[in-house]
Amino acid sequence: MPSPQSPERKVIAVDMDEVIADALGEHLTRYNRDFANDHAAAITLDDLRGRRLWQVAPAQRHPVIDNYLREDDFFRVLQVMPNSQRVLERLQSRYEVFIASAAMEVPTSFVAKYDWLAEHFPFIPTSHIVFCGDKSILRADYLIDDNPRQLALFRGEGILYTSPANIHINGYRRVDNWLAVEKMFLS
Amino acid sequence: MPSPQSPERKVIAVDMDEVIADALGEHLTRYNRDFANDHAAAITLDDLRGRRLWQVAPAQRHPVIDNYLREDDFFRVLQVMPNSQRVLERLQSRYEVFIASAAMEVPTSFVAKYDWLAEHFPFIPTSHIVFCGDKSILRADYLIDDNPRQLALFRGEGILYTSPANIHINGYRRVDNWLAVEKMFLS
Repeated sequence: MPSPQSPERKVIAVDMDEVIADALGEHLTRYNRDFANDHAAAITLDDLRGRRLWQVAPAQRHPVIDNYLREDDFFRVLQVMPNSQRVLERLQSRYEVFIASAAMEVPTSFVAKYDWLAEHFPFIPTSHIVFCGDKSILRADYLIDDNPRQLALFRGEGILYTSPANIHINGYRRVDNWLAVEKMFLS
Repeated sequence: MPSPQSPERKVIAVDMDEVIADALGEHLTRYNRDFANDHAAAITLDDLRGRRLWQVAPAQRHPVIDNYLREDDFFRVLQVMPNSQRVLERLQSRYEVFIASAAMEVPTSFVAKYDWLAEHFPFIPTSHIVFCGDKSILRADYLIDDNPRQLALFRGEGILYTSPANIHINGYRRVDNWLAVEKMFLS
């Protein structure tokens, strides 16, 4: 039982890809590097509203797209989502924060994801990093995630972090960026 | 809400090291290979009742012991705990089973642990594997673990799986082996 001096803090679990790490941006960078040219326009984020990259790209390119995730450097070079570092560090003062990534889907990503977190979020203790598959296993009050399938499995309150693919999804409180997370949890 | 036809199953989380994987046995094998000789008796499991290897071994050997865990092959060659495969597969018919390892303590172990599970427990879907640090994050009804520190953090019922180091620990239901797990959950 928590003592009256230290009331138990709410737990927030935070997804990695598309929430703190811009995996989609890196996907587009690699796709356009490989396929955009004078005759084929680059795919933009606007092209992906309500759709995933594999729904826009021709079928014969799907194996190439799938392979980007397995390239050694993919998860190491991802850009940090704007304001996520500052807001996550602030959240830690009022909440218990865990990073929870569905890393089991890409087992080659474990070390790169771990190293990326150490580099960009050194204030998250390794004890509070979770690599999982099905997020029903998380005991947290909130899960901030862009994936509606994971939010549906989760047993606390799911907060939908906006990404192009999920703009038509309803049924969850939604945050469009980390300033919105800050307002929701800290104002 | 689960339908009456499929009542929600209880969730059991199961630790890896000392519960399904004999990490201590491999530690002793490597220690005795390096330090036991005509003048120094091998350390046995009996020597470790209520103590950890680093409490028995001279201090100057601690860096060597710590390093065993970081050797590339360590987590790949671990023996499977007797009956754990058969009983875990039976548990899946009545419970939702997750494997939950505190792998964040040894980040070099991720891939070896993942591969070891695929080899010896292929019936556990990767969606039900969790690499974490602090097991307070697990939403499960039961956690079978040899580590009292993790059981104290866990919010469901902790089941203490006997290992030499924990024989003096009280306060949890205890199982000495996988036949005892089978009896507790399936009889």
